[in-house]
Amino acid sequence: MTTVAPPVDLNALLDRARTAQAGLPYGPRRAALLEVAARLRARAPEIVRANAADVEGETRRGTPAPLIDRLSLDEARVHAIADACAQVADLPDPLHRIVSGWRLPNGLEVRETTVPFGVIAMIYESRPNVTVDAAALALAAGSAAVLRGSASALHSNRALTDAIREGVAAVGLDPDVVQLVDSPDRAYVTELLSARGRVDLAIPRGGASLIRHVVDTAKVPVIETGVGNCHVYVHADADLEMAAEIVVNAKVQRPGVCNSAETLLVDAAVAEAFLPAVAARLRDAGVELRGCDRTRTFVDATPATDADWDEEFLDLILAVRIVDDLDAAIAHVARHGSGHTEAIVTRSREAARRFQARVDAAAVFVNASTRFTDGFVFGFGAEIGISTQKLHARGPMGLAQLVARKYLVDGEGQIRD
Amino acid sequence: MTTVAPPVDLNALLDRARTAQAGLPYGPRRAALLEVAARLRARAPEIVRANAADVEGETRRGTPAPLIDRLSLDEARVHAIADACAQVADLPDPLHRIVSGWRLPNGLEVRETTVPFGVIAMIYESRPNVTVDAAALALAAGSAAVLRGSASALHSNRALTDAIREGVAAVGLDPDVVQLVDSPDRAYVTELLSARGRVDLAIPRGGASLIRHVVDTAKVPVIETGVGNCHVYVHADADLEMAAEIVVNAKVQRPGVCNSAETLLVDAAVAEAFLPAVAARLRDAGVELRGCDRTRTFVDATPATDADWDEEFLDLILAVRIVDDLDAAIAHVARHGSGHTEAIVTRSREAARRFQARVDAAAVFVNASTRFTDGFVFGFGAEIGISTQKLHARGPMGLAQLVARKYLVDGEGQIRD
Repeated sequence: MTTVAPPVDLNALLDRARTAQAGLPYGPRRAALLEVAARLRARAPEIVRANAADVEGETRRGTPAPLIDRLSLDEARVHAIADACAQVADLPDPLHRIVSGWRLPNGLEVRETTVPFGVIAMIYESRPNVTVDAAALALAAGSAAVLRGSASALHSNRALTDAIREGVAAVGLDPDVVQLVDSPDRAYVTELLSARGRVDLAIPRGGASLIRHVVDTAKVPVIETGVGNCHVYVHADADLEMAAEIVVNAKVQRPGVCNSAETLLVDAAVAEAFLPAVAARLRDAGVELRGCDRTRTFVDATPATDADWDEEFLDLILAVRIVDDLDAAIAHVARHGSGHTEAIVTRSREAARRFQARVDAAAVFVNASTRFTDGFVFGFGAEIGISTQKLHARGPMGLAQLVARKYLVDGEGQIRD
Repeated sequence: MTTVAPPVDLNALLDRARTAQAGLPYGPRRAALLEVAARLRARAPEIVRANAADVEGETRRGTPAPLIDRLSLDEARVHAIADACAQVADLPDPLHRIVSGWRLPNGLEVRETTVPFGVIAMIYESRPNVTVDAAALALAAGSAAVLRGSASALHSNRALTDAIREGVAAVGLDPDVVQLVDSPDRAYVTELLSARGRVDLAIPRGGASLIRHVVDTAKVPVIETGVGNCHVYVHADADLEMAAEIVVNAKVQRPGVCNSAETLLVDAAVAEAFLPAVAARLRDAGVELRGCDRTRTFVDATPATDADWDEEFLDLILAVRIVDDLDAAIAHVARHGSGHTEAIVTRSREAARRFQARVDAAAVFVNASTRFTDGFVFGFGAEIGISTQKLHARGPMGLAQLVARKYLVDGEGQIRD
């Protein structure tokens, strides 16, 4: 069932996206999201059939099982994707908000308002749900979505995009507000990321190498997302039972996601009291420990290599290091952290404040699992990704972060002296 | 007086900047700005001497007079630069603000706070005042400044940077928080723009080609600034006397800056009544008109070429086009505008609202000159540049826009289910 895709005229596609996006009204945007959800449910059987072709192709190619699982859709998963789309319709409109406003001494009235980005390009990997999540969030934020998923999910993404466009058209909007770059050719990614003036924002979602490729290649503005080398630091003054609960949760509850912990830092003062007990619980949960030399005097662990401190394992593996004090922990995080989420466990107000002030990351937790850095948990109702850069939004990006600003200035003939 | 600069170890320079930046306290930052201003004033004679070497070099090279003027410093200009630096010390601290905060259902308390970017790289052209402006704003925002000015201003920038670093050191701060990339070799620009993880933000300031080069080259986050192809649209229902005042002001008051108007769009309904009168006033002010065919039926003008609609003249030249109606004006701006500043002159509430809603630019004015898009005019007290992109800040960027965000999350042992 491999289809040879015809060449894509990317600039024409982007221009259609721009035209479709211009002046998207609010009411129909909301209605479109509900209609898209309905079409996804109605077309679930054919979406699952299209997905089966992708899964078969990847299975034949010998793709590992966890990746096949990320790619696979059944009807229940399609319905869950449709539900998420419908939920976006219930979120408050992020556009037309007056963020600030004031009057200048010369009488000019300034309003800083929220406006759509325009055309948002999503570059992502095999999870087909991203196709719908990204289209729904872009549409809700008044922007057009140009989608470039993995070649391995092309049949699935076509079926999903068809359903989305049908829903958009059903409420009288231009379906070109959501378009798939329908080709497995990677040259289109480069072209998309070079389309200055036509693409207002590119968001990569996927593994570290995809994100690095996008950031290195892009000439359009990019929001870097998702790589999480997150640490939990157990301070000398920690409640050790609380610390063990947090460490186990941060590592084990869902090891394949970016906000799970990859390195445990233990203060030397509590290493002997803490490490053997937590190591037993981690090992019971199937976690492989990779420890520094000092760690290995207290617990059985594979010797950690230098590379382990920088690795996002996304698996049941935890690097463990004993540090001399709070500042050594802060220095380790500064050197190895990816700017995603960092946590300290402590009863000391001073240590908590110092850690939160000195650690540079999107989210810095005291006495809680790193797993809470998440748009849904934060109450945003949706998430396009977790920004690990400092420009624009940082941390979980929901609908409210997927907009730009515009100053509206009203006068009565003012000129400048 | 040409000095051969030794090779620069840029990574080491950036690491020193990072170390110097970490934990810059507020009180001394403010004191440093005042001390820097004092040292600039005290060293004004030697700064002017260093500048003379640059001016001499450029004069010998046959650089045009307006560029020589941009480069030139006399003692009065150095004092004005010092005054601007001292004024930054009076601005409210942009750091440690709680932008938003809430409690999650599980009891976690979330605070979204402002934090420094870290290391900010400024890539700029011959104006030496940017050296001090950028250093002062970065320092006030808690960041380190790594400065890369034009080779033509290298002696000036060395003298200015020496004074800045002396002022910083005088209050006990690490002078490496402000560093000059002391080499005319352009390879360092590429290296600086590729230093992911070491440079948190790059800001280009200068002409269109510099900005394009930076945006095309950078692998670090960039804020695009400054290119202004600004339009004034005189609507059918405009007060024509007000319109003439605004057009003349927007073009003539300071033609060499990005917020001056480059194209006048005149509604066909008022072309005959408006154009001859405004053309006479513009010509009296020395403005060359480049008109479309219809314009040239009403006034003498050079025939406009297609390229004129896209040109940022930065000079006493104005492209003039007659458009059929409001939507034709909006379409012209969408096609040719640079996203900086656009203005409509009208008495019609409906036309004003439609223009402001549909035109996509950092600032959209009704009945006022485009010249007001400016950090000082907007009341920001300073300006690092005017962002013409949609990511992060858009429009004039003052101190408040020169910060990033961080979520601080406080719990009591919460773990995720």
